[in-house]
Amino acid sequence: MFTLKELAALVHGTVLGDGDVVISGVSDIRKAKPGTLTFLDGKKYMEYSKSTKASAILTDEKDALNDIDGILVDDVRVSMAKTLEQFKPDVKPKPGKASSAIIDSNAQLGENVSIGPFAVIENDVIIGDNTSIGSHSVIGKGAIIGSNVDIHSGVKVYNNCKIGNQITVFSGTVIGADGFGFVPQNDTHIKIPQIGRVIIEDNVEIGANCTIDRGTMGDTVIGEGSKFDDQVHIAHNVQVGKGCLFAGQTAIGGSTIIGDYCMFGGKSTATDHVVIGPRSMIAAVSAVMKSVPGGEIYSGRPARKLRDQQKKDAVLTQISGLKKRLRKLEENS
Amino acid sequence: MFTLKELAALVHGTVLGDGDVVISGVSDIRKAKPGTLTFLDGKKYMEYSKSTKASAILTDEKDALNDIDGILVDDVRVSMAKTLEQFKPDVKPKPGKASSAIIDSNAQLGENVSIGPFAVIENDVIIGDNTSIGSHSVIGKGAIIGSNVDIHSGVKVYNNCKIGNQITVFSGTVIGADGFGFVPQNDTHIKIPQIGRVIIEDNVEIGANCTIDRGTMGDTVIGEGSKFDDQVHIAHNVQVGKGCLFAGQTAIGGSTIIGDYCMFGGKSTATDHVVIGPRSMIAAVSAVMKSVPGGEIYSGRPARKLRDQQKKDAVLTQISGLKKRLRKLEENS
Amino acid sequence: MFTLKELAALVHGTVLGDGDVVISGVSDIRKAKPGTLTFLDGKKYMEYSKSTKASAILTDEKDALNDIDGILVDDVRVSMAKTLEQFKPDVKPKPGKASSAIIDSNAQLGENVSIGPFAVIENDVIIGDNTSIGSHSVIGKGAIIGSNVDIHSGVKVYNNCKIGNQITVFSGTVIGADGFGFVPQNDTHIKIPQIGRVIIEDNVEIGANCTIDRGTMGDTVIGEGSKFDDQVHIAHNVQVGKGCLFAGQTAIGGSTIIGDYCMFGGKSTATDHVVIGPRSMIAAVSAVMKSVPGGEIYSGRPARKLRDQQKKDAVLTQISGLKKRLRKLEENS
Repeated sequence: MFTLKELAALVHGTVLGDGDVVISGVSDIRKAKPGTLTFLDGKKYMEYSKSTKASAILTDEKDALNDIDGILVDDVRVSMAKTLEQFKPDVKPKPGKASSAIIDSNAQLGENVSIGPFAVIENDVIIGDNTSIGSHSVIGKGAIIGSNVDIHSGVKVYNNCKIGNQITVFSGTVIGADGFGFVPQNDTHIKIPQIGRVIIEDNVEIGANCTIDRGTMGDTVIGEGSKFDDQVHIAHNVQVGKGCLFAGQTAIGGSTIIGDYCMFGGKSTATDHVVIGPRSMIAAVSAVMKSVPGGEIYSGRPARKLRDQQKKDAVLTQISGLKKRLRKLEENS
Repeated sequence: MFTLKELAALVHGTVLGDGDVVISGVSDIRKAKPGTLTFLDGKKYMEYSKSTKASAILTDEKDALNDIDGILVDDVRVSMAKTLEQFKPDVKPKPGKASSAIIDSNAQLGENVSIGPFAVIENDVIIGDNTSIGSHSVIGKGAIIGSNVDIHSGVKVYNNCKIGNQITVFSGTVIGADGFGFVPQNDTHIKIPQIGRVIIEDNVEIGANCTIDRGTMGDTVIGEGSKFDDQVHIAHNVQVGKGCLFAGQTAIGGSTIIGDYCMFGGKSTATDHVVIGPRSMIAAVSAVMKSVPGGEIYSGRPARKLRDQQKKDAVLTQISGLKKRLRKLEENS
Repeated sequence: MFTLKELAALVHGTVLGDGDVVISGVSDIRKAKPGTLTFLDGKKYMEYSKSTKASAILTDEKDALNDIDGILVDDVRVSMAKTLEQFKPDVKPKPGKASSAIIDSNAQLGENVSIGPFAVIENDVIIGDNTSIGSHSVIGKGAIIGSNVDIHSGVKVYNNCKIGNQITVFSGTVIGADGFGFVPQNDTHIKIPQIGRVIIEDNVEIGANCTIDRGTMGDTVIGEGSKFDDQVHIAHNVQVGKGCLFAGQTAIGGSTIIGDYCMFGGKSTATDHVVIGPRSMIAAVSAVMKSVPGGEIYSGRPARKLRDQQKKDAVLTQISGLKKRLRKLEENS
């Protein structure tokens, strides 16, 4: 429970109206309940400000607060993130080792580490301070996990992988399984052993049921600050730059290199051995099949610059015009 | 083991031939073994009725039973479902709590509940009657699970999610992980805490290795009677109507609203923030990128009404005709 | 640690230069460190042979070894596979049963079997010699697992499935969940019980977080020597031939039949009930929607022979030429 003015202070905003209104939760503006704070970003949904049942609105539109108490801010979404943080239920596990966990005597654990029930920490593992390993998770032999890492339940980290600091990994994700490497020989497929690692830099978040494969000889690397939705697949030897975003079910093929600050829409793909320049934006359900220089939106299969893709689509609509003109010529000839 | 007349009574069908034939199993008509009942739906595969090694056929085609015993019914597939139910091996866990399971003392369990080995039931969880929680599954703090629910091994239900009655969840599925919500600010991505829930209504089935993310402030909702194949991804804040079907590897983007009785083909997608009208049928490997009114088949990327999509494809084949006509005109001019 | 001549003997290659050079590891040619052996396959990257910091190169290009010690071989990739095998860390679990594992008294275990912590082996399971079952894995009632099988952590094998010999299954994979089978009736979906099995033949490798569903009445079959990347989905009743390859996030629809030695590119699909002839190569992000005879590359959605697909794309680029010619005719008419 906060007063409106307490929340305004938190987000460095200005109270318009009654700062003593008590806020007990947050809500979507269309489904808001009394006692909650809701959010209005820009003019598009401003009509909802009149009918919402919320007790207050946090917004960047002063006029939205004519008839209701609220907080005026510059950046609604950043303020929303800070506000939601206050109302987040505390489910972080307490430090301590579950008696059912199996922790190898050679493993080195930092301060305030939490190891959940039925977790398995193999030999030569190193875990940093304030890190929690969820129930049923496995940290394989020789893996290194940094500080302030939150590995949820049922995550499997294979041997020798290295996970940085301030990282969250959601349930069911598998880090460090073998890449898909076989040599064809007389209709059999000879396995290429995969002896590299996965390296995950700091401040990465990885969703549920993702797979990030280890490198063949070198390492698969996930750059600092990159964020993954659920069911993302990263093949062996991929190099992901800093601050990239991967929406749900994205797949990146082997040895592909992704520059800094790229964004991949849902179910998008880059095939293997392509280079994707920095600040590329790959549209949803698109497939990058050749290297792209970056700094643009790419769309379609194969992915082209968005403008080229639209041109291609436009061509199709021109054909009926061509047909008419052709018929006219034929009639006249 | 059943006699043919016992099975006929079960499906409200009519025995043609010897009702005392003993049936010990079911089989595909092309690979059938003596002693089994097989199924023939319509005329298309009627030729197989002559060569099958099955002892009897359940069919809606009287003529298929000229030379073999069988059961005549109105609806073969409904009758098949009922018949297979009789031959299903019983693998439902017995009621009781595995001694290895960890059940918080604050959790409330109904009658005849089964908790499998190494399951973790956190505090303030409520579980209804006749529900089973599989081995290695986790029911997070404050989650509510209804009656007659069958959660298989290795399922993770995050805190505060709500699962209705008569629901099956297959292994590896993760319910209630955070949605993919970040605010960009100076090349960093600020996390938007995801504090909503997942609500799953009654009679839902969810396949293996699916992910259904919790809402940001409100709830992600899966409507009554909807069914999910494996590896389906539902992003945060999605609203799924009643009786929808999602084939394998379907992905639904954040905040999208899906009407009642929609069907999504394999590997299909709807991007975020679209509204999909009731009884939409999305073809396999199609991507809905704008809202659609429903009641039709939509296909392609972006998904169009099937007829429009076919028209677009047809245009391409017209071009060579146009070229010929143009050349003729040029020769004559 | 090996000498160069020891490694040459292993791969049946010829040492060029000093065979006593000591090799302590392997590396990528561009990121190589002293003391390592690197690999050069063909002329394409031959320039790197001059600047690499590796101590030796294994190659099929004699000229690459003018200034550096090395091993000359006929097939670099096969030799690389053999060499990497020598440097692979040993993480195979030791034989023995973890005291925390739950093994039904009716289960039959072969010689030298390893059962990991918190694994569950249900009744009537049979496990062959030298097989290891990873931590948190479940082998369901009546399942049969062959010899020299390596099932990693957190794999779920449902009841009655049959897994052959020399098989590896990576973490998070689910084998034998129900196929997606429902009969529509008055806006409800009646479940068709799935009582068949999954049969996996010898020498198969299955990546992380895959799903292979059991058959409805018969069996889903994975042919000998087939290999699966991560997050592959195989629906019920599918028949996969020998030696097929499935790259990441491939999905195969129900009852589809795949001939021997087919290759599926990343994120490719075959819809249900199609027949894919032997030696078909399905390009990445392509969707086979009708049966194809095999022996060719198929690409696009719907997948066509690659040549037809390219022709279709070429048509689009012809239209602007047609427009010019048409305008000229119009001006002259």
